[in-house]
Amino acid sequence: MNAPQPSVNALAAPLLDRLLQDADRLRLAVTRDASGATLVDAGIAARGSVEAGLHVAQLCMGGLGTVRLSSAPREGWPDWLHVRSSQPVLACLASQYAGWSLSASKEEGGGRKFFALGSGPARALACREPLFEELRYRDAADRGVLVLEVDRPPPAVIVDKVLRDCGLAPAGLAFVLTPTASFAGTTQVVARVLEVALHRAHALAFPLQDIVEGTACAPLPAPGADPLEAMARTNDAILYGGQVHLTVTGGADAAHALARKLPSVNSPQHGRSFGALFAEAGHDFYKLDGALFAPAQVWVSHLGSGRTWHAGHLRMDLLRAVWQDEGLP
Amino acid sequence: MNAPQPSVNALAAPLLDRLLQDADRLRLAVTRDASGATLVDAGIAARGSVEAGLHVAQLCMGGLGTVRLSSAPREGWPDWLHVRSSQPVLACLASQYAGWSLSASKEEGGGRKFFALGSGPARALACREPLFEELRYRDAADRGVLVLEVDRPPPAVIVDKVLRDCGLAPAGLAFVLTPTASFAGTTQVVARVLEVALHRAHALAFPLQDIVEGTACAPLPAPGADPLEAMARTNDAILYGGQVHLTVTGGADAAHALARKLPSVNSPQHGRSFGALFAEAGHDFYKLDGALFAPAQVWVSHLGSGRTWHAGHLRMDLLRAVWQDEGLP
Amino acid sequence: MNAPQPSVNALAAPLLDRLLQDADRLRLAVTRDASGATLVDAGIAARGSVEAGLHVAQLCMGGLGTVRLSSAPREGWPDWLHVRSSQPVLACLASQYAGWSLSASKEEGGGRKFFALGSGPARALACREPLFEELRYRDAADRGVLVLEVDRPPPAVIVDKVLRDCGLAPAGLAFVLTPTASFAGTTQVVARVLEVALHRAHALAFPLQDIVEGTACAPLPAPGADPLEAMARTNDAILYGGQVHLTVTGGADAAHALARKLPSVNSPQHGRSFGALFAEAGHDFYKLDGALFAPAQVWVSHLGSGRTWHAGHLRMDLLRAVWQDEGLP
Repeated sequence: MNAPQPSVNALAAPLLDRLLQDADRLRLAVTRDASGATLVDAGIAARGSVEAGLHVAQLCMGGLGTVRLSSAPREGWPDWLHVRSSQPVLACLASQYAGWSLSASKEEGGGRKFFALGSGPARALACREPLFEELRYRDAADRGVLVLEVDRPPPAVIVDKVLRDCGLAPAGLAFVLTPTASFAGTTQVVARVLEVALHRAHALAFPLQDIVEGTACAPLPAPGADPLEAMARTNDAILYGGQVHLTVTGGADAAHALARKLPSVNSPQHGRSFGALFAEAGHDFYKLDGALFAPAQVWVSHLGSGRTWHAGHLRMDLLRAVWQDEGLP
Repeated sequence: MNAPQPSVNALAAPLLDRLLQDADRLRLAVTRDASGATLVDAGIAARGSVEAGLHVAQLCMGGLGTVRLSSAPREGWPDWLHVRSSQPVLACLASQYAGWSLSASKEEGGGRKFFALGSGPARALACREPLFEELRYRDAADRGVLVLEVDRPPPAVIVDKVLRDCGLAPAGLAFVLTPTASFAGTTQVVARVLEVALHRAHALAFPLQDIVEGTACAPLPAPGADPLEAMARTNDAILYGGQVHLTVTGGADAAHALARKLPSVNSPQHGRSFGALFAEAGHDFYKLDGALFAPAQVWVSHLGSGRTWHAGHLRMDLLRAVWQDEGLP
Repeated sequence: MNAPQPSVNALAAPLLDRLLQDADRLRLAVTRDASGATLVDAGIAARGSVEAGLHVAQLCMGGLGTVRLSSAPREGWPDWLHVRSSQPVLACLASQYAGWSLSASKEEGGGRKFFALGSGPARALACREPLFEELRYRDAADRGVLVLEVDRPPPAVIVDKVLRDCGLAPAGLAFVLTPTASFAGTTQVVARVLEVALHRAHALAFPLQDIVEGTACAPLPAPGADPLEAMARTNDAILYGGQVHLTVTGGADAAHALARKLPSVNSPQHGRSFGALFAEAGHDFYKLDGALFAPAQVWVSHLGSGRTWHAGHLRMDLLRAVWQDEGLP
């Protein structure tokens, strides 16, 4: 029996309203674009906050996921994000995944090229990515939110395109802007630990509709000093600190194979920090091994047999070496 | 000074409303029985979800308890339930305990005998169990919820009996149906870890009114492949993975004795899985040693003296051996 | 870009309303003083509860902090409080800090001297402490809450003074009364673990405006048998079990120095329980070394450089020795 599918944008709308209402407390700046669309600065001119990042992360999961920060130190690191969803495919792939490529030329961008990978529930209104055919999901709503990891507001040409593709009036569209090297940016990117597992499962050709529950956690680093270091940290947090538990239906062999192949230890590049690997690859993301972009440690439970397989392991020593100095005594 | 006692059914009503409102998202199917009573399928034809299980667990505690899932792996297991209540006796014994025996003959049951142990706040409207005299608690409300661990809806004769005993109109009564071998079922049963401690304290003749605070946690297994395995797992989760902290008033000696006698290690059957013991007992629950049905590890704090006693220990090695395969690398 | 500063009293008002509404469930007694001000007994004649303590702690942080209890045993202790704030200076120093000295003579006090250190958001309406000049924060609101660690209601002269200094009508003022040796008292005092770190940073002359994020945790002991033991336990919980992560701006050297100097291990008195030290000092709090009043373990992250320094360590062995007996088996 299939329940009707929930609307990620309808569920996200009250979360956005709360974000706007709490803007001062969360150190956000809210303005309107020339078109009338809402712009939430969560780390450009405004400082933003970790708490804003938690709200943005839940918004980005279309209201179908829970993101919490635990301040219980574990494995020598003080802060950990906990993510879970009982609708992991919709939450992570139909909404949270940064898959909508948005670019503007230098002229369109006001003298500077603009590029961003849009994430969040508005993606499911536009359905511009082939992934949505596989997901067999298309949302309909009169409000939508798109999250952009950028250091400036989107130019008019991008706002117009998003409005058009989503079928929204400007008053119904909001952009949340979170540079990676900000509290909210680092937080909402590390909160993608469950999404990274689903994306990897998809790359391994595991049938998405068979993934029915997901929980995850990852250590939350301090924002890196610059965009490059910030990106390296959010990747390392997941690759070497991410722990994910998926529960799946379908065949037990497929579940077992998923557990074996999923963790980042399957990559020959495993064991070196993202920063070092990225420099070595000449800052070309696409030269890095795809198998590396996966959680460090996984459990996969299989609903038919009740079995659970475990694979991979944390490398907190590596994270501490990159993230932390000792300040003795 | 005694505060007026809260109404478990009044507190549960808004939790039920939210469950009904979020039914699609939680993968629940909501229908009405011929009488007009509400039936929430949380794992029979509908798949249900872990998140539904968390909501059902809080509902089942009459709104007087908090149940959370932590996705921070601990002791080699990914998911743990955390339960707490500042009204543990009302939450666990007057509401959550599965103590209301409901049975129908083959004829009344539409060709198949029906048996269920009702749990949740509606028990405190009917007060059909001797336990309620000891608790000196009787709730009054025009709405009630009963949770049943069953694989089919209750027959009309059971619905009628519950309506009559609770003094409810059909529009005011809801049944939540959670087979143990479902996400919601496994979740809401493991969430009974604190209740199991209170039930054992009662069996040890500890005065219930002296238990004033309780916190607990237990690992959440994947649902077992069939009802028998599912039941074994939820029991093992508590017997070998349950950790409970009670704070009590009364005499310090009684508190100390409670700590000593409470954990499952007091049973000579301790150390073997529920599944093995149950098979050995010819699937006769009542041949098993009552002392085994207790949390693995306990702390008991005594309010008068400020002392805390600790006893018992986890056996996560046993749980991992029964629940998990390695999926190396 | 500076966002307008949030109002700690406006944010606390709905939290107070919820506390009043849930009074029975939380075992609180709510009355009105002769003037009409609200008095919430959270542990004097009413027993109160741990859950009430969590609510009071969040109220006391002016709605700018989150306080949670985790029932996942860690380091051999069952319950831990988790505290975080993305506005740590306002939450902890402008609101939570017990800094408003309120005293009445024997005559004014109805035959017994009255002394209390007021904490909570109403402090920021009165601004009677020099600290507020440094914070450059003054709240304006028509409702206010003050938390007092006392064993009796404040006398009329204190109520009048608070009304006058805060510029409130009696209907707009509430006092929450939490003796340390109660559930709510012990809980809300241990929840000051983050505030203790900020207070110590202030004593070390670290610029307060540079502290932008804070997370913390500490073990929650059972309430001590008497006020003295209760106070000793809440102090020990922070001094030997407190773990704090601050993120700061400003210079990297200042951040590093803060990490080094912050933890309690910097005090020559470190390693002995508060109870023993306090007795030795003839129960004169001001003879104790100020450096001891700090969390056990800290991480300080620096926003400009992305570096994190770590210092100090837990002494759970000491806490268990003072708080716990073994109750074997």
